[in-house]
Amino acid sequence: MSIDALQTRIRKLKNPTMLGLDPTQDIIPPQILSESFEKYGTTPKGLAEAGYTFCHALLQELKDFIPAVKLQSACFFALGADGIAVMQRLLQDAADMGYYVVMDLMRNDVPHTAELSAASVFHGIRIGEETFQPYVCDAVTLGAYTGSDGIQPYLPYCKGGAKNIFLLVKTSNKSSREVQDLLSGDRVIYTAMADLAMRWSNQDFGKYGYSEVAITAGATFPDALKKLRDKYDRLFLLVSGYGAQGGSAKHVQYAFDRMGHGAIVCASRSIISAWKREGETAENYCAAARRAAEKMKKEILKYVEIV
Amino acid sequence: MSIDALQTRIRKLKNPTMLGLDPTQDIIPPQILSESFEKYGTTPKGLAEAGYTFCHALLQELKDFIPAVKLQSACFFALGADGIAVMQRLLQDAADMGYYVVMDLMRNDVPHTAELSAASVFHGIRIGEETFQPYVCDAVTLGAYTGSDGIQPYLPYCKGGAKNIFLLVKTSNKSSREVQDLLSGDRVIYTAMADLAMRWSNQDFGKYGYSEVAITAGATFPDALKKLRDKYDRLFLLVSGYGAQGGSAKHVQYAFDRMGHGAIVCASRSIISAWKREGETAENYCAAARRAAEKMKKEILKYVEIV
Repeated sequence: MSIDALQTRIRKLKNPTMLGLDPTQDIIPPQILSESFEKYGTTPKGLAEAGYTFCHALLQELKDFIPAVKLQSACFFALGADGIAVMQRLLQDAADMGYYVVMDLMRNDVPHTAELSAASVFHGIRIGEETFQPYVCDAVTLGAYTGSDGIQPYLPYCKGGAKNIFLLVKTSNKSSREVQDLLSGDRVIYTAMADLAMRWSNQDFGKYGYSEVAITAGATFPDALKKLRDKYDRLFLLVSGYGAQGGSAKHVQYAFDRMGHGAIVCASRSIISAWKREGETAENYCAAARRAAEKMKKEILKYVEIV
Repeated sequence: MSIDALQTRIRKLKNPTMLGLDPTQDIIPPQILSESFEKYGTTPKGLAEAGYTFCHALLQELKDFIPAVKLQSACFFALGADGIAVMQRLLQDAADMGYYVVMDLMRNDVPHTAELSAASVFHGIRIGEETFQPYVCDAVTLGAYTGSDGIQPYLPYCKGGAKNIFLLVKTSNKSSREVQDLLSGDRVIYTAMADLAMRWSNQDFGKYGYSEVAITAGATFPDALKKLRDKYDRLFLLVSGYGAQGGSAKHVQYAFDRMGHGAIVCASRSIISAWKREGETAENYCAAARRAAEKMKKEILKYVEIV
């Protein structure tokens, strides 16, 4: 799915939000955990499969409401092969349900790892006569600290193949300023990263005016969102850190252009762990997530009108 | 294993080199591939298991000669769960054989992913009454673009637990200068990263004078090696890009201190694909790798005397 297709989906659902799936043991409802442990053992597989049940149900619940989903690879990687197997299935499920699917990789690459990684997420690995694609997704997040040749292998899939990369530009965590806000000449480092994204976009823009090479920015830094939106009107923004990390609807409004396009706001824990915060019973985690997702959409649409 | 233990192992073997395992289809000998495809199918599992056979034999061949090994996680991740399962086994095997083991992750983290990731590599994930450690290693490589709070969760394991992190400071690829050499005040960005590493070291140094928080630098940039060694006499250097990427023994000498300590040089393709370059038969890939490893050691020891 291209950025155009994502933007069209956002307009159709009138919902500029993204579901973040960062399943951890503490937010999976106890009955799902105990059933899975009983079936698969109190093991990484048991925990991973509980994560599958939990995330799959949330994907089902929200598929006609939220246009996009982001899976945090670290949460699955941390369980070894069992976690990765579950992530592979969830990526495929999400794609089958019609979501725009992002795998949050946060990797830095050098040329030969970038080539392998790009093939594994966007095209497939050739083995014998067949091509296997372990990770089915529309986009990945990447660090760009290594510069052009660590990104280059992903670009052909962006241009011709309607795939996207989201470069880490201004991250939502508190200490992001330590490197990202260092001044270099008349730029801060995070705008130097955005300049690279513009260079890699190669002046190739969709019907909404945005490049297939996109960037991430934190809801927790409204001034940065404003600066990025003003200066880089061709770079689509994945805004993270909404909700649990402190970013609000008032903050994220600056990420959108005057048509209400050009950005999508991701919330993870504030949606998927809503059942805990709301004092809701664990059985109703899907309903709680839906209410939290509806509230988030409503709040953002107070500030953003999507044309 | 701490940096002290690594340094002691380097001194004992009189070999400041590290074996890089980046197994890709093109460098696995054909007979290993065909046997594995026959057993497991022409599938990601077949390819991953061929990588296991290949890497395991190389580990066995070199275990009394090379003190440390680095597994490139991207090469295994690219095959999905089958690749990750093989990486998990190889990490354990390498540790059992006595190697100092690095998992080359190259991840950027935010606080909650860092916590999970640090537990999965250095301590284990608590599930029920038990702790499972999917990845057994002494160190990981990390990007530090997100600043302190993405690194903090790894630090307790470095201080008390004799684990290490290697921060991406100056990478070996050609375009690394695009971000890493940007000037900020009187520093370039890669020295700003090294300054952060020093801050995170918390003045905690081993008997050789080096911090458990270490950094990576490219053999391809001798001036940067010189600058880093001179200015940061407390930061141990993992030097990559030797051999296939163009770094030479003459270049890497600058990474070592006057005692011949403080650095280790990693070579991957120049060793593990030596059988192809040497026109050697595929059956003799271990012997070819050993010759390449011996040559590399000899070349470096022409310039570096380890006291």
